[in-house]
Amino acid sequence: MTTTTDQFDAARRRIRDAYSPELFGTLARRWAETLQNHFRKVESGSGPVLNWTPPADCVADAHASLDQRAPEGRPDAATPVIDEIERRFGQLVETILSRGNNLHHPRYIGHQVPASIPVAALFDAVGSATNQVMAIYEMGPWATSVERALIERVGETLGLTPGEFAGLITHGGSLANLTGLLTARNVMLRASWERGLAETDRPPVLLVHADVHYGITRAAGALGIGTRNVHKVSLDHRRRLDPQALDRQLQEFRDAGTPVMAVAACACATPIGAFDPLPEIAAVCRQHNVWLHVDAAHGGAAAFSDRHRHLVAGIEQADSIVVDAHKMLFMPALCAFVFYRNRENRFQTFQQDAPYLFDPSAPGMAEYDSGMLTVECTKRAAAFGLWGIWSLFGPQLFADLVDSTFDLGRKFYGMLQESPDFEPLHEPQCNIVTFRYRPEAMRDADLKSVGEFNQRIRRRIIESGSFYLVQTNLNGAAALRVTIINPLTTAEDLRALLEEIRTVGRDLSLVNSQ
Amino acid sequence: MTTTTDQFDAARRRIRDAYSPELFGTLARRWAETLQNHFRKVESGSGPVLNWTPPADCVADAHASLDQRAPEGRPDAATPVIDEIERRFGQLVETILSRGNNLHHPRYIGHQVPASIPVAALFDAVGSATNQVMAIYEMGPWATSVERALIERVGETLGLTPGEFAGLITHGGSLANLTGLLTARNVMLRASWERGLAETDRPPVLLVHADVHYGITRAAGALGIGTRNVHKVSLDHRRRLDPQALDRQLQEFRDAGTPVMAVAACACATPIGAFDPLPEIAAVCRQHNVWLHVDAAHGGAAAFSDRHRHLVAGIEQADSIVVDAHKMLFMPALCAFVFYRNRENRFQTFQQDAPYLFDPSAPGMAEYDSGMLTVECTKRAAAFGLWGIWSLFGPQLFADLVDSTFDLGRKFYGMLQESPDFEPLHEPQCNIVTFRYRPEAMRDADLKSVGEFNQRIRRRIIESGSFYLVQTNLNGAAALRVTIINPLTTAEDLRALLEEIRTVGRDLSLVNSQ
Repeated sequence: MTTTTDQFDAARRRIRDAYSPELFGTLARRWAETLQNHFRKVESGSGPVLNWTPPADCVADAHASLDQRAPEGRPDAATPVIDEIERRFGQLVETILSRGNNLHHPRYIGHQVPASIPVAALFDAVGSATNQVMAIYEMGPWATSVERALIERVGETLGLTPGEFAGLITHGGSLANLTGLLTARNVMLRASWERGLAETDRPPVLLVHADVHYGITRAAGALGIGTRNVHKVSLDHRRRLDPQALDRQLQEFRDAGTPVMAVAACACATPIGAFDPLPEIAAVCRQHNVWLHVDAAHGGAAAFSDRHRHLVAGIEQADSIVVDAHKMLFMPALCAFVFYRNRENRFQTFQQDAPYLFDPSAPGMAEYDSGMLTVECTKRAAAFGLWGIWSLFGPQLFADLVDSTFDLGRKFYGMLQESPDFEPLHEPQCNIVTFRYRPEAMRDADLKSVGEFNQRIRRRIIESGSFYLVQTNLNGAAALRVTIINPLTTAEDLRALLEEIRTVGRDLSLVNSQ
Repeated sequence: MTTTTDQFDAARRRIRDAYSPELFGTLARRWAETLQNHFRKVESGSGPVLNWTPPADCVADAHASLDQRAPEGRPDAATPVIDEIERRFGQLVETILSRGNNLHHPRYIGHQVPASIPVAALFDAVGSATNQVMAIYEMGPWATSVERALIERVGETLGLTPGEFAGLITHGGSLANLTGLLTARNVMLRASWERGLAETDRPPVLLVHADVHYGITRAAGALGIGTRNVHKVSLDHRRRLDPQALDRQLQEFRDAGTPVMAVAACACATPIGAFDPLPEIAAVCRQHNVWLHVDAAHGGAAAFSDRHRHLVAGIEQADSIVVDAHKMLFMPALCAFVFYRNRENRFQTFQQDAPYLFDPSAPGMAEYDSGMLTVECTKRAAAFGLWGIWSLFGPQLFADLVDSTFDLGRKFYGMLQESPDFEPLHEPQCNIVTFRYRPEAMRDADLKSVGEFNQRIRRRIIESGSFYLVQTNLNGAAALRVTIINPLTTAEDLRALLEEIRTVGRDLSLVNSQ
């Protein structure tokens, strides 16, 4: 097919329109107004938390928008085209805002995904608008430098020794765990990168906290270890990994001649937010010469707080550590850190070159090429938000956020203890609290029925938009689970939650008894 | 440690300030003005492309910002604190903008990372500001729905059969390739997920295009296959995978009883942008009953263009396909698609559950839970940009962008052919053009010296900020490589590039001969 000059000119004009700085400015100002109003409304607790729509309907609506675009230049219209595009842009932004889950609503107390610091998104969006990325230093000098500076700051906050450790930022806790464990595999099973695992005499094993995140078990599946070679280590009465049980298991594997790829501990584990006793676990791992990986995706931020640092004491003895800035540092998703205590291990993850990326005429530069360390080749500037907030407000803000949400978690536990129709299932160490509603009438019901009752209450509540909370399984039955990860949530909101659960519970019981 | 009421109140106040909608609005308006001005300047070609600073200096500067934060409330100051924060915010944004690589400069013709459509970032930033994520449907109903709708649209554009295929979006082409190949491994080596690879009788192999992206070889290392079990298939004279050579190699492995995990083809490969003959390759793979994976990270977008769709003909016969929207759909990083021709394979990648995420009381919902399909658990809303741009401008814009950049690639090839001091190294199939500068004086020099000369010219040019282009290795020597991936680049810019190379080349030769 050939292109006429007219077609070519029309294409150039459409491209110039889409890239117009004036159009960008007009829409960006509209964006600023709309988002400010959104935060005003949602942060004040007005409107629903979750905007619930059944998935098939929601997907149909997303399709419909793709078919209804703004009319192109209409010479007969009174409205200039830029106004028409702005109108349509406004509609699209409103659609996004009116159909999502409002994490900034004080009654969002759900998954370990925060009501992020709004201004952080502005820094991230500088990177996004200008498409600042990295892989090699020269593609993103500032993105690379910001990431490097933050790796040093956060690592030192964790207690790692300056100059001795290294790290990277990647897209999410699961990928961070996979990256850390891949490094562990390559260090502990030296031939595995090049020769694969098929030539291994005995299947290696991975020992994990029994409540470890599913991403860790998945990593064993992905890395060729096999999910059935993941062995759970017993927990103590507070669901923390038991160092003595670990010692016994490691001894058994050693006696059997089974290679151990790593031990994965938690700070904290997701079901009830239990922090493992890291100094004891690190001592056992050292004694058995085994790699210790600590998933501190949620709890690593405790290191910023004088009052809560003790929860992650000993983390600096781990061989690899994962900390998600998009959890308890209140950054927008995704910005996950991986640290290696020994910086010599940072190039063990991957062992390759790419001639069109890495420049042999500037050999020292590879030290600053992020692509050597991460699964991502092109990687977005994921740390501008954290760098900007730290530079604007200082690290005290991170301590404030940890302290206030952890404190409110304990306060909520107190409320549950004082309510005879609620059962707190643990004494919280942080801002994760798991419990069941068990009114008088269910006192003698079996646990499974109580769990199902709680699940039905939750579904009713989240679909109504009054609160967003989650569920988990504990001791074989479902339970309700709250993470106080919106710093605008108050004790009053949590008291209202208990009332809401009672009201919905009564409603459901009445329906059932009719 | 205990907290006094005063400390608690001060922390609450600092948090409220950071979350203030008024502060957000003020800074967002400032952001809009600054970015509009930035695009005006950079798109007009003013200032440098790359802002070069040596890495150690740049990291030191990133550290310095972290230490110089805006003063907190100063009761004696005339300036209100919000003004002070705005001033500091403005400085930080200017720092980001003045230290990066300006992809929107028309003389940015570098890696396969585009001058993204600026407005796309506004849609992405709606998600970032409100922290819309997914994993399970209820956490991000709209993010999930937008992603689902786009998977259907892009998949159909590639020629996949509606209702029969499935897909996902993940963070980058490397992770997308890893995900597709993990699925291939689990389908072709059924026991590998659960049992690992240590019990495999014979090491399985992965056959790849000889110029395949390093992410694919890395995937073999990560997935336990082993990088030495990656076998390169011969290329034809245009560096395309040779289907007959593939057929022979597959037959040899079959005769030897060696399991083949997959064949990885390219559309296109990175060094010279070569598109493989997919119908012939697919036929060979079918005949040998082998999984075909196509890395169409760069070239998949050709399917949007009537004039260039032929380059990816046959792609719909692949078992897994990767297409990066952050390449030739001109989205900001990262937004990579993985497609499976047979939707039955979508749950083969991972085979697990996570009780606190997936709700047994709403079983149909798992079909909409993105976490079942992707490495990421919490995943940012990576498709708002593409959805917004498609909805505003329609898919014709993507065709325009492909056509105009591919056309300019061919025009540049013509310029090289007409210049006796330049050697084009291939006839381009798309917007990637690889060449060497070889002036009269170097006519008899060995290829390695010519390559090194070109590398030195490139480094001088990129550090000066006049152009940003890259390098690769071809036939054992370095070469210059251009990707026309900023649609604002003109033929005039490319003519100026040849002049700049000549000027810098003469300069370097003079220095050498002195």
